[in-house]
Amino acid sequence: MDPLANVCSNFEQVGQAFVSHYYNTFDANRSHLGQLYKDEVSMLNFEHSAERPGQYKGVSAILSKIQSLPFQQVKHHVITIDCQPTPGGGVIVMVCGNLLVDAEQIPQKFSQVFQLLPSGNGSFYILNDIFRLNIG
Amino acid sequence: MDPLANVCSNFEQVGQAFVSHYYNTFDANRSHLGQLYKDEVSMLNFEHSAERPGQYKGVSAILSKIQSLPFQQVKHHVITIDCQPTPGGGVIVMVCGNLLVDAEQIPQKFSQVFQLLPSGNGSFYILNDIFRLNIG
Repeated sequence: MDPLANVCSNFEQVGQAFVSHYYNTFDANRSHLGQLYKDEVSMLNFEHSAERPGQYKGVSAILSKIQSLPFQQVKHHVITIDCQPTPGGGVIVMVCGNLLVDAEQIPQKFSQVFQLLPSGNGSFYILNDIFRLNIG
Repeated sequence: MDPLANVCSNFEQVGQAFVSHYYNTFDANRSHLGQLYKDEVSMLNFEHSAERPGQYKGVSAILSKIQSLPFQQVKHHVITIDCQPTPGGGVIVMVCGNLLVDAEQIPQKFSQVFQLLPSGNGSFYILNDIFRLNIG
């Protein structure tokens, strides 16, 4: 079976528009990000490790984690965006960039990957979300 | 419909084993990586940009790109691995790490994401592959 039989033909535009919307929302009012995730289905890995688990499932747990991050202000500066189509009309999006929190002067490099799936009404939701600071 | 109705229950082990196998093969003899991709289906973004396109589709194009990389020796040092299940029994894997090529002394940071899909014989193939050096 062709895994891309039902491909998202404008995956590049979908991914680019998502990235713009996601980080604008994150930087303006991250409590509004909940609408981009789905019920009990969406997953987030946030700096996950065996010593400090950071795996969250479902809108409520994900939003709670995002809102609890220990800064008041953040600015994401996106450097690269890669998009590819995935099965079921989905899109995988990888973002690399820099972020600045509060009064920090030195940006931190980050990488983040999303898999978006069609929600059936013409829009997309985040199924997979993995965030990493590029340290170590 | 639950996008994870047919979930890969051991996605963490699948992802970890894949990462070990992929980079060991890459560093030992990258011409053998072709067996991890599938026919005309697999996709690779390698440092892709509008100015210097780096999108490849199908085993032949992907392997040709990997083999043409301008170094004789490379060593990938994996720092973090994140795995999540995806629809169709698949696994998304994000890797962050350092790599050293030839006689270079200063490692370069990289991030790479894969989506693995079951090949039907108990193993997995790479559908999506996106590689980025963390520069800029």
